[in-house]
Amino acid sequence: MKCSVFIATSADGFIAKNDGSVDWLHTAGIPDVDLGDDADMGFKQFMASVDCMIMGRKCMEMIHSMQLTEEQWPYGDTRIIVLSNTLTQLPEFPGKVELYSGDIKVLLKNLENQGHTHAYVDGGTTIQGFINLELINQMTITRAPILLGEGISLFGKTKKDIKLAQCSAKRFANDFIQEVLSVNYD
Amino acid sequence: MKCSVFIATSADGFIAKNDGSVDWLHTAGIPDVDLGDDADMGFKQFMASVDCMIMGRKCMEMIHSMQLTEEQWPYGDTRIIVLSNTLTQLPEFPGKVELYSGDIKVLLKNLENQGHTHAYVDGGTTIQGFINLELINQMTITRAPILLGEGISLFGKTKKDIKLAQCSAKRFANDFIQEVLSVNYD
Repeated sequence: MKCSVFIATSADGFIAKNDGSVDWLHTAGIPDVDLGDDADMGFKQFMASVDCMIMGRKCMEMIHSMQLTEEQWPYGDTRIIVLSNTLTQLPEFPGKVELYSGDIKVLLKNLENQGHTHAYVDGGTTIQGFINLELINQMTITRAPILLGEGISLFGKTKKDIKLAQCSAKRFANDFIQEVLSVNYD
Repeated sequence: MKCSVFIATSADGFIAKNDGSVDWLHTAGIPDVDLGDDADMGFKQFMASVDCMIMGRKCMEMIHSMQLTEEQWPYGDTRIIVLSNTLTQLPEFPGKVELYSGDIKVLLKNLENQGHTHAYVDGGTTIQGFINLELINQMTITRAPILLGEGISLFGKTKKDIKLAQCSAKRFANDFIQEVLSVNYD
């Protein structure tokens, strides 16, 4: 099961402010520039490559707080699994969202047995957990040209140094830079 | 007085491990690839653009620990000012190194009065201090494709969000990515 990350960070590596807000993403760089074919910075193409999504509780709550309509829902009919060991039920979403608590490797094995091949993993804590289980294979990191100074980090402690390989790097007209990195746990 | 940063970080934003070591810089990416004209990743060209250097005590101590010969000294005859409020004298160096304690803005004013126009600012604590004094104008950040998990951060807390602008972005054959960013304190 391939597991990939697709996420935006500040130049100092934060995915959100401490209160979870990501407003700064919409003002960083040159927000009103015409991105042409890059308007979604590769998101639709990435979504088309995955067949399920795994996110943490906090990530789910942040998305829920946005109160997206069916038209605004960015994940189509992709099956979404929310990891939580505390929740017993989920709020309403316009998409296919289900709850999972338990072992991550068992979850991935189950998803594989159900025909899934590529998971989109989202949320800082969840991504860090997956990296420490050596489960993330690829990361698309889009860096916004802004320093936040503090917030929720994309990365955390690792058990060892983890080598990455640059698959591609692209600068967008809005001054964001997107790197696609593969992960090598050897 | 223009103040610039030229520094390498891990993909998770560290400039050194907690013990100050930067060995990982030499094994990250594809270390044995031929970089051709990019062998120094722009360092000589950057050095040619500055006329003085300001670094923190820890940065000086790290450089001193390398026991560089005159031939290995990477800063030519560029005047180097080491900031320290505790040291009273410096160890021997093959280059022009002097000690300064006191107000940074006074130092920059003095350097300007002595004809300097562009300072290379180095060392994590020093760079963070300069950013919070709104003194850094440009940053060249070369990201090594490796996660360290912990270490000495390039960036720290800021008093507010700081907008950056992407001047250029370049991917080297060794899988490092170099961004040149200008800093906007408005």
